[in-house]
This record gives sequence, structure tokens and C-alpha cells, in this order.
Amino acid sequence: MFVSTQIQLAARPQGWPTHDDFRTVQVTHGPLQDGEVRVRNAFVSVDPYMRGRMNDTRSYVAPYALGETVTGGAVGRVVESADPSLPVGTAVLHQHGWSDAVQAPASTFRAVAEIPGVPLSVHLHVLGMTGLTAYVGLTAIAGLREGDTVFVSGAAGAVGSSVGQIAKLLGAGRVIGSAGSAEKVDALTSRYGYDVAFNYKDGDVRGQLAAAAPDGIDVFFDNVGGDHLEAALDAFNDGGRAALCGAISGYNTTTRAPGPDNLANVITRGLTLQGFTLAGYLHLAPEFTQAMTGWFGAGTIAYDETVVDGIEHTVDAFLDMMRGANTGKMLVRVDG
Amino acid sequence: MFVSTQIQLAARPQGWPTHDDFRTVQVTHGPLQDGEVRVRNAFVSVDPYMRGRMNDTRSYVAPYALGETVTGGAVGRVVESADPSLPVGTAVLHQHGWSDAVQAPASTFRAVAEIPGVPLSVHLHVLGMTGLTAYVGLTAIAGLREGDTVFVSGAAGAVGSSVGQIAKLLGAGRVIGSAGSAEKVDALTSRYGYDVAFNYKDGDVRGQLAAAAPDGIDVFFDNVGGDHLEAALDAFNDGGRAALCGAISGYNTTTRAPGPDNLANVITRGLTLQGFTLAGYLHLAPEFTQAMTGWFGAGTIAYDETVVDGIEHTVDAFLDMMRGANTGKMLVRVDG
Repeated sequence: MFVSTQIQLAARPQGWPTHDDFRTVQVTHGPLQDGEVRVRNAFVSVDPYMRGRMNDTRSYVAPYALGETVTGGAVGRVVESADPSLPVGTAVLHQHGWSDAVQAPASTFRAVAEIPGVPLSVHLHVLGMTGLTAYVGLTAIAGLREGDTVFVSGAAGAVGSSVGQIAKLLGAGRVIGSAGSAEKVDALTSRYGYDVAFNYKDGDVRGQLAAAAPDGIDVFFDNVGGDHLEAALDAFNDGGRAALCGAISGYNTTTRAPGPDNLANVITRGLTLQGFTLAGYLHLAPEFTQAMTGWFGAGTIAYDETVVDGIEHTVDAFLDMMRGANTGKMLVRVDG
Repeated sequence: MFVSTQIQLAARPQGWPTHDDFRTVQVTHGPLQDGEVRVRNAFVSVDPYMRGRMNDTRSYVAPYALGETVTGGAVGRVVESADPSLPVGTAVLHQHGWSDAVQAPASTFRAVAEIPGVPLSVHLHVLGMTGLTAYVGLTAIAGLREGDTVFVSGAAGAVGSSVGQIAKLLGAGRVIGSAGSAEKVDALTSRYGYDVAFNYKDGDVRGQLAAAAPDGIDVFFDNVGGDHLEAALDAFNDGGRAALCGAISGYNTTTRAPGPDNLANVITRGLTLQGFTLAGYLHLAPEFTQAMTGWFGAGTIAYDETVVDGIEHTVDAFLDMMRGANTGKMLVRVDG
């Protein structure tokens, strides 16, 4: 008998999600069918974009269905196989989401290379989705150029902690990051390649950014929105480009906040604000993987994980991540 | 003796400009020097962007200096010449601005072709700056594609009245315009190539746009900002592109209005908002002139002028234009 513990969406959250919006279920799977495999997860991902899918609103991906398991990235290992392409022991990446184990067709899993001494979880961040997000935002969206001054909001998060390093590797000049604690600000400059960093919880994001970027910014990689976008619009040099990746400051509000009061700068300075999600840029994954594997292998990519143990604490991990409790990637470790 | 009447900026307007912010002066010019010409203007241009230059704030062009003549587009004819390149009688375009006559080096004027039966003023709009603005916004900024649904705010103005027609000529599908009076709305569909139009002063721009664009919009050409930008963000299809050309709704406010409350759509729908001014796109002028001369010669470009007579009424014309009193291009006719 193969049993899994899964977290389902029980109700659509209003504002901040609560435990009542989710339900933990035990699922007993039927006999393994030809072409199926059974996987025990090692790490399950919790990501900001999931909050949007919990709403029943138009977005680039369909909303999560009520009463179904929350899908998303996870990595694990095949423990039983009825498909020759994925023998027992294979490390796999998949999108089955918040569960400690999965039984599903082999075609819904992708084998990943194991790197000696490196946890499988890197395929959920620096070598996976969040690393690709950083790369796409800097290259395809913001068109990073040699010597550009780059500002990154939410710079100590899963995406932001890669953005600074990739920007430097791609030739950026000054790279500036904001984060929400003194520890994170320290990590930005000591670990993640940022030249200068500030704590947005100290207030006056506009003033702090202006002080950090006396010659203005050319590229803005936004994970936060709100006052960070407003500050960037004031700091932009002519022809500046913003890659709008996330706006976590507004994900759990029940009222929609007004936008920045200085959008007129977009016209007078000839700025470009481009939003993106990975869906339209998966064709860049091979190019990214080649570059990142090289950097990673050379030991030039620093990363951190904030790990919560136990699938039953997935919702806690998700909420902690939304509150900014993580440095680097927030993960749920399933197999202890 | 060569005397000109010029309008100078006397004070920086706070909010809506008043006559007290300007001063009319008579200038007696010295003897004509080698290389100079004297020009009597036929038409002087008043344009929305001039309002921005009246403020002492950073912008793509320097602010107007206090106590100097307001510069900008004008067309006229050489009446005395001390430069063989511009003989008496030559029709010229220049940037000397709000004056009934100019004495200046020949190099600061550009000879323009006269088209039989067509007033020189077309070089101040459809064959000039505003036509080029429409063309650049649709092509270089918004990347107009065959079949795109296009929404244009302030569509009956000098720029907007060209945008609809050029969009159609370049292969757009449905083209939707907004304007501020029933007469203008009628002109949009009867003269300017729009498929459907609405009066934004009837309110509910979001609802009116949604009704006009049941299948969403792909391109937004914005001259207005404010509620028009907000409405467009709700109407955009995935991958939509906005050319932000102007935001006249905010030019005369003394407080900065908050931005749209739905900027999150930029991310979830993968939108691009790009501001622009002509300064960076003058290299497209030859391409535009070739295309527009062809369309214009074929009689396919409709245009209108709202003309105020007399250089002494230039400020009235400017204020009327800011209030939307014009259909098509607002001009001051100087030589009666």
C-alpha cells in the first residue's frame, strides 16, 4: 500500500491565508499501473506566485481548484517503477506539489543530475525555476548591458539572491539590493554579490535608494512592487528598464493599493516597465542551464535555504515565506 | 527695421497656467548679419509637452528659461536673406517658437516642400512632429502587429487623430478611440479611421473600453494617463504593449495623483509599458516621411486644425488645447 500526505486548498484565502484555508489529507494509491512510478519527495517548494493561484482571478496560470492538492515544484526519488525510463533510485523534479509522495505517470517527472555534495533541492532554486527567473528577467526582459547599475527589491529571497550574482557575472556595474532585516542586508553584500544594500523596513525607500545610487539606476528587478517601484521610478536614468517579476507587497491585501504617483517619469525618461512570468520564456532554459551549471560548478554561486521540516508544516513554511522569514529559498524538507 | 512680437515665460505656472505666467514683448532686431535670415511665421504650434517644459523639473528637454521666448515648432517664409541656402520666399520649419517673426542663422531653419493646395501648417502636424510621434509609438514602441486591437486615448487630438489612421494603414484590426466630446467621438469614426469610439466624459472608462473591446486590446497608445491607463491595464490581452506618449490628465495638477491600482496585471499578463519622447527616435523621421508622404499624397490621411488667429492669442490657444477645445491640431495663425 502506498500512502501519501497531501495539502489541499479548502477555501480561497481573503487577504492573508490561514490554516483554515487548507486541509491535510491521506491518500491511499491504487496498484501501480504500467508507465507509472512512485516517488518519495525530498523537498517541496513554496513560492510567492502560489498566492496568486489561490485566488479565483484571471492570471497566466489557472487558479488552484478547491479540494485539490496545491501543485508546484518538488524533488524526490523514485521508490517503485513501472516505467523503464525512470528506474528506482532516480532523482526527479516534478510539479505535483504539496505532498510527501506521488504516484503518477513517468512522463510527469523529469530526471535531474545529482551533483556530489549538493542537495537535490538546488533544482528547486539556483539550478531551477528561481535561477531561471533571475536570468530571464535580467537578460530577455531588462536587456542588461555591461556596466549597468542594477537595483533589486526583495534581494535576499530565492530569486533576488540569484539576481545580484548573475547580474555581476553578466557584466553589471554597481548592484544594489533591498531586504527586510539587518541579517539579510548583510547577506546581500557578504554572500550574494551586491555592492550595497539597505533595509527597507528602516523606511524611506526613495531616500535610501537615492543614497545607494547617486548616479541613478539603469535596471530594476522588482519582486516587491509598491514603494519599491515608486523609488525606482525616481532613481531611473533615461532609458531605464524594469523587469517586473513580483509584487509581494500586495499579494495579501484585500484592497488594491494605488500605483506609484510618479509614472509620468516613464514618459519623460523613456523608461520600459515589462512584466513577465516564466511561462513565456521556458525556451531560455537550456541557455540558462548551460550558463548556470558552469558558474555553479566553478563555485561562484552562493545560495541559502531556509528549511522547514515535515509536509504537515508546508502551510507554515508558505506563510513564513510570504512574511519574509526566509533568506534564500524557502523549502519544506519531507524525508527528514 | 525688423520687429517681432514674442511670448515669453514670465513665471513658472502652479497648476493651470494663467496669462500672468507669460509676457508679450516687442523685439527690434539688429541689422541682418551674413548667414542670417528673417522669417515671418505663418503658423505657430502649441503642444501638450510644452507644459512640462514650463516646470523647473528634470525632463528629457531642459525647462524653459524664465524671461525667454517659449520655443517650439513654427512654419513661415523667408522675407529677407543673407544666406544663399535660403532665398527669399522659401518655406521653412523651425523651433524658434512663440513669435510672429524671427531673425536667426539660416542653419536653424529647415526648408520644407510646399504641397499645392495644402497649408504649410501640415509640417507642424501630420507631416511633422505629431505624425512622427504617432508612427514611432505604433512601430518602434508598441511593435504593432497585423490584426492587433489598438486603443488610443485622447484620440481626437493632434497625435491621436493620426494614430488611428496609421494603425489601420499598418494592418491593425479593431481600432478604438476615446475623446472628450460627442463631436470628437463622431470625428473619430467618420474621419480618423477608428472602428469604435467613446466619450470619456460620460464616465466609467473601464466599462466603456471593455464594451468596445470585448476580445481585449493588444496595443494601447496613451496620451491621457490616469483612468485611461487603468482601464487599458484591465483590458489588455497577454503580452499587450503600451506606448506611453502623454499623460495630459496630470499636467496641470499641483498634487501628483496615485497611479493605477491594477499594475499587478503588468506581471500576470506579461505586459510592456514603454514611455517615449521623440528625442530618441528622430532617426525614424526619414522612414516616416517616406511612408506618410505616400499616404498623404494618396489622399488617405484626414486631418483637422483648430486655428486661433494672432500671436497675441497664443496663450489662449495653449490653454484651450490643454482643456481639449481642439479637434486635430491646435495652431496659432500669425499672418492672418
